[in-house]
Amino acid sequence: MAVEFGLRGTFACETRISSIIDEQLAYAGYTIEELVDHQISFEETIYLLWYLKLPSVSELKVLTDDLKAHMEISDVIEAALRIQCRENLHPMSVLRSTISLLGVFDRDAEKTDPEATYLQAINIQAKMPTIIAAFSRLRRGLDPIPPRQDLSFAGNFIYMLEGKEPTKVQEESLNEGLVLHADHELNASTFAARSCASTLSDMYSCITTGIATLKGSLHGGANERVFEMLRAIDACGDTETYLQEKLDSKEKVMGFGHRVYQTVDPRQKYLKKKARELTVGTEDEKWYHLSIEVEHFMREKKGIIPNVDFYSATVYHSLGIESDLFTLIFAMSRTAGWVAHVFEQKSENTLIRPRSKYVGPMNLKFVPLELRENVSAIQEG
Amino acid sequence: MAVEFGLRGTFACETRISSIIDEQLAYAGYTIEELVDHQISFEETIYLLWYLKLPSVSELKVLTDDLKAHMEISDVIEAALRIQCRENLHPMSVLRSTISLLGVFDRDAEKTDPEATYLQAINIQAKMPTIIAAFSRLRRGLDPIPPRQDLSFAGNFIYMLEGKEPTKVQEESLNEGLVLHADHELNASTFAARSCASTLSDMYSCITTGIATLKGSLHGGANERVFEMLRAIDACGDTETYLQEKLDSKEKVMGFGHRVYQTVDPRQKYLKKKARELTVGTEDEKWYHLSIEVEHFMREKKGIIPNVDFYSATVYHSLGIESDLFTLIFAMSRTAGWVAHVFEQKSENTLIRPRSKYVGPMNLKFVPLELRENVSAIQEG
Ligand SMILES: CC(C)(COP(=O)(O)OP(=O)(O)OC[C@H]1O[C@@H](n2cnc3c(N)ncnc32)[C@H](O)[C@@H]1OP(=O)(O)O)[C@@H](O)C(=O)NCCC(=O)NCCS
Ligand SMILES: CC(C)(COP(=O)(O)OP(=O)(O)OC[C@H]1O[C@@H](n2cnc3c(N)ncnc32)[C@H](O)[C@@H]1OP(=O)(O)O)[C@@H](O)C(=O)NCCC(=O)NCCS
Repeated sequence: MAVEFGLRGTFACETRISSIIDEQLAYAGYTIEELVDHQISFEETIYLLWYLKLPSVSELKVLTDDLKAHMEISDVIEAALRIQCRENLHPMSVLRSTISLLGVFDRDAEKTDPEATYLQAINIQAKMPTIIAAFSRLRRGLDPIPPRQDLSFAGNFIYMLEGKEPTKVQEESLNEGLVLHADHELNASTFAARSCASTLSDMYSCITTGIATLKGSLHGGANERVFEMLRAIDACGDTETYLQEKLDSKEKVMGFGHRVYQTVDPRQKYLKKKARELTVGTEDEKWYHLSIEVEHFMREKKGIIPNVDFYSATVYHSLGIESDLFTLIFAMSRTAGWVAHVFEQKSENTLIRPRSKYVGPMNLKFVPLELRENVSAIQEG
Repeated sequence: MAVEFGLRGTFACETRISSIIDEQLAYAGYTIEELVDHQISFEETIYLLWYLKLPSVSELKVLTDDLKAHMEISDVIEAALRIQCRENLHPMSVLRSTISLLGVFDRDAEKTDPEATYLQAINIQAKMPTIIAAFSRLRRGLDPIPPRQDLSFAGNFIYMLEGKEPTKVQEESLNEGLVLHADHELNASTFAARSCASTLSDMYSCITTGIATLKGSLHGGANERVFEMLRAIDACGDTETYLQEKLDSKEKVMGFGHRVYQTVDPRQKYLKKKARELTVGTEDEKWYHLSIEVEHFMREKKGIIPNVDFYSATVYHSLGIESDLFTLIFAMSRTAGWVAHVFEQKSENTLIRPRSKYVGPMNLKFVPLELRENVSAIQEG
């Protein structure tokens, strides 16, 4: 049997959570066009992904009340964040550890009944913005700002960063970013989280796995690297030369290309529009124009399309978010999808356990230590 | 295209690290019979998996010196362990958080050159026994015992638990347990760790993912549950009734069955022999005899075979290890394999990103919140 490198094109499970069909993305049967054009809130999106239907007014209230009741972080989690504020660390590593610690301190983390599992998910989803905002402030030498119950999920996050209520367009832009990143079929981090769930590991383990996997530069890690690249192009002053050098040296250009989409990433146009709306007439407008240049170059030279991470970089930057936190925003949104997939995986579980094809030598004979030759060791690929 | 539920039988990658062919397990071309019969040390096994060859005397010295230089844990990690010692928590959650924290505090965690990656791996492999032993002591109200440089990997771990040097049979038994759990082709946690690595995430993220995934009861979590079961059977006093009830209620019997092996798990006979050697003439002998009874019943009634986790429970118990730490011992051994697979995955990387088959409704039309009906919400499988 053939090896499916990267499992390209292999169906690893059935799902009702999201679909990519003809380059169109849908959540539980609703295309993202349908959802975003009707300005769905991120809270409704969480409900949609977890329950596979849009909530009624009262159902939504239960969910948002539960989220609000779980937003505050305990002193021990805040203390853990303070200890983790050192120079040069990767904020995704801090998020990974802190969500894992949440699990250690949740006395019901090992419970497996539906109510307990739901509350584990709520606990993670509700606290993640608080953790990210607290971390952002603590490392700037500022005290965290407690969450506010009267704001939306997106609005409250922006509020916790600086203590200022967001403008309408800021709140809408972050909300849209969160909605568009919330789920994406069997992307690498979701698949890793499902693999974890398939051993019947607990919710905190699954979401920690999701964060750890999202961190990589070929996945969510691209998000933060896009803005670093825009800065570098700006500093270099010559977009074409900069990008041509990347391509010549076979380096990947961050925010471009996709395993599933060939001609268009359906999420991209919304973020591009928001990037324009947010920056027009401001000093950030240059990032929007620079992004357009990069998009044109990549399309013409390589026929490679911008993905969800490309314009979201400019959106998040103009919301005042530090670029090394972009992937954490991605995580805070994708948690909605990870949780949904963990629920689904466990509801009809089969252990995810593929095979590998062995291509090395066989039937080697053991040689005692003293008789082995001293040849230099290399790891063969 | 068909859905490969659980990726049963799908080749997800090529490998040179280990193979299961005709129910025989081999590491880099050496069958485990060949290795265990020649009493290979766990340190040599680490080398074999990471470099795909047996080390010379001097190569082995470099590896063991590097491990010894990294065994001690910092004050901040010890403090983090002290904070995590509360009642009723799951020790695998503590290990997951602590290895993640190690990454936060490793200033070179983001480096990707071979030397840095090797040192990240060494740091995790060397400190894991120290972390587990320290945790075991701290929660008993005792101070951790610093590692000893003059002992073997296995011997030092036993020493750090109680401060007593192990007997020869104790050291050999743990060494053998570590060697036999060190790698196992694309088991669920290794596959999840490779998925994480395939996004180009860092070593600490990959090993945290491995731990999170190993924790599940269908995977490494079975290890600790085996001994709980033996205790329960002992208390019930009737092996057949106890097991028949499990089978009747369609519960899985822990330590039995395997995705890949049908007739024999080649690792099992060694652990069975060690379980006998360690317990004969002691008060623990009853666990060995009880295990034999369970094995016979399962074979006759269901034709299901004991796996690696079954007799290792009695081995670890008779070494004085608390049963809820068994899966952590598994992790400390499997780290050798996880690291090898992370190296291999990154050396010829393709993003691991399968597809899922959508089986839900399509083209649904958005209904504004106020107009939605208030029907009770269920997650459909
Ligand atoms: C997302 C991604 C991993 C998809 O990977 P994949 O399906 O395995 O595709 P491949 O890496 O095999 O790419 C196919 C071809 O396109 C090229 N390519 C893909 N993405 C590229 C990019 N961002 N920049 C330059 N070239 C790229 C590859 O070099 C390869 O070219 P080749 O056939 O000449 O070797 C890949 O496009 C990428 O690394 N993108 C940059 C990171 C990123 O933005 N990730 C976020 C995704 S939401
Ligand atoms: C390891 C394991 C997950 C393999 O799973 P799998 O390849 O998906 O196999 P399945 O769960 O489909 O099992 C096939 C059949 O054997 C039965 N079976 C497998 N392991 C069983 C066990 N431990 N106890 C009782 N029945 C078992 C299943 O119920 C199923 O029976 P059915 O066909 O009548 O429904 C499974 O054997 C198991 O859960 N074992 C117990 C946990 C354990 O010891 N894990 C450590 C593995 S190293």
